[in-house]
Amino acid sequence: MPLSEFATFADALDHAAQTTNRQMDRLLPNGDGPEAQLFEAMRWSALGPGKRLRPFFVFASATLFGVSAAAAARVASAVEFVHCYSLIHDDLPAMDDDDFRRGRPSCHKRFDEATAILAGDALQSLAFEILAHAETHGDPAVRAALVTAMAKAIGAQGMVGGQMMDLQSEGKVLESASITRLQRLKTGALMAFSCTAGAVLAKTGESPRHALHAYAHDLGLAFQIADDLLDAEGTREATGKTPGKDQAAGKVTFVSVLGLERARSQAALLADQACKHLDLFGTKADLLKQAATFVVSRRS
Amino acid sequence: MPLSEFATFADALDHAAQTTNRQMDRLLPNGDGPEAQLFEAMRWSALGPGKRLRPFFVFASATLFGVSAAAAARVASAVEFVHCYSLIHDDLPAMDDDDFRRGRPSCHKRFDEATAILAGDALQSLAFEILAHAETHGDPAVRAALVTAMAKAIGAQGMVGGQMMDLQSEGKVLESASITRLQRLKTGALMAFSCTAGAVLAKTGESPRHALHAYAHDLGLAFQIADDLLDAEGTREATGKTPGKDQAAGKVTFVSVLGLERARSQAALLADQACKHLDLFGTKADLLKQAATFVVSRRS
Repeated sequence: MPLSEFATFADALDHAAQTTNRQMDRLLPNGDGPEAQLFEAMRWSALGPGKRLRPFFVFASATLFGVSAAAAARVASAVEFVHCYSLIHDDLPAMDDDDFRRGRPSCHKRFDEATAILAGDALQSLAFEILAHAETHGDPAVRAALVTAMAKAIGAQGMVGGQMMDLQSEGKVLESASITRLQRLKTGALMAFSCTAGAVLAKTGESPRHALHAYAHDLGLAFQIADDLLDAEGTREATGKTPGKDQAAGKVTFVSVLGLERARSQAALLADQACKHLDLFGTKADLLKQAATFVVSRRS
Repeated sequence: MPLSEFATFADALDHAAQTTNRQMDRLLPNGDGPEAQLFEAMRWSALGPGKRLRPFFVFASATLFGVSAAAAARVASAVEFVHCYSLIHDDLPAMDDDDFRRGRPSCHKRFDEATAILAGDALQSLAFEILAHAETHGDPAVRAALVTAMAKAIGAQGMVGGQMMDLQSEGKVLESASITRLQRLKTGALMAFSCTAGAVLAKTGESPRHALHAYAHDLGLAFQIADDLLDAEGTREATGKTPGKDQAAGKVTFVSVLGLERARSQAALLADQACKHLDLFGTKADLLKQAATFVVSRRS
């Protein structure tokens, strides 16, 4: 049933997560032979616990325009595969060097570094393969548009560029504008792809697409501030990650720049602002508005 | 001018390389700011010396069907970006741990490991971005087909799967059939994409596509055997790589399985066989036939 018919946001999020998990399981490679360890590593990282927030945004934006759940599930899986690939590579010793992810050993700890690098690489390819496949949309122009938007969102001038900026910022003092740009690239770009995917699938005009992009932009920053707050205040039990890592690594975060109090109020302000962009959709966007509240109030 | 009009194979190869280099230069990101090191690393690896053999195959197959050089140059660049990304990641300490590539420090030696991982990741995204872009082909169905074919060729059941098999084979005894399968995935799949790209761009029927695929299959193996022979017999001066690395790493190669003599004759046999698949193209395929001779007789 459409996501909008669930009684609560939590139910809708849970439904999106379960649908995505089933779809990812079908799309991931499986098998014996000498490459089996690669398949296992991809599955370990992609099918582990996770909120599936980005997939939820794909479903929620698809629901706005009556896009089929089957198409949304494929795009949602592609987004989650990319997110997982970025986490696998971010966790590597040469990058953030994190032994834990989502409460379990990270990919290179569970397997080894070489396998983790390859699993991330293969998850990226798989995401593009899914987007370009005829099952995702009958119109090849839509498939090509999805590939283009995803590639821009996650490439050198998107997610990976943001990750480079993040590594370069270690131990430096950044202004609020710089860290905002960094996070727009590092986490905002894939979030924006997720929130606008429904409009691409529905071939809408520019106006709803721009509204969703503006929503995603504000929400992405709110999300990142909330993430920084969790890193500063959270526990491993709640977040499944090593707490205080950002500070220990000398990383610039919204918390280090704004302080706890201002970071908290800024996140709330951005979430409010995000919702205002959705006014043109009326009550159909209630789910996306609840998502904004969830993002800034989550405890894990 | 079309590749077929060059007097010698060496001239045609050189022309394809220069055209690809110029196109890659235009397509690679450039700029200042905290992510500049990422752009530099992508440029360092992609624009360094190299034969551009895979781009050549894209141009040569495009020439068979009268596909525009502009379209071929874009696809050739995408192929070379993917090839470079795979070399950057293969050279990492956790993988083949190679300090030299194409006669220069490898990416993680010139920059650092984190930058090398990210540069490879971003080159992969860039390749898909190029294939899906309207400038590559006016028909979005062709663009989607290119993305699909590339994603399959380089994913878990293609190039990356082959790399996993290669790592898993270290120190083991493999039969000729297993190493053939390994190499079909690791190097053959991207080679096959390159050789068939012209047919995809020209929207040919199945028959020429299958012929090019069969050619690429035999040629890819011949190429890999020649590569193993170079590793066993070559010098750093000639190949730009550390020689004898495969043996030192306990890697199974065609040379370790077949011995030098049989490896040499097998490569020549495969190159001959590859050319036979091209008979339906008549003299138009002369360039591809010369490429087969070059591949097995090269000294670097």
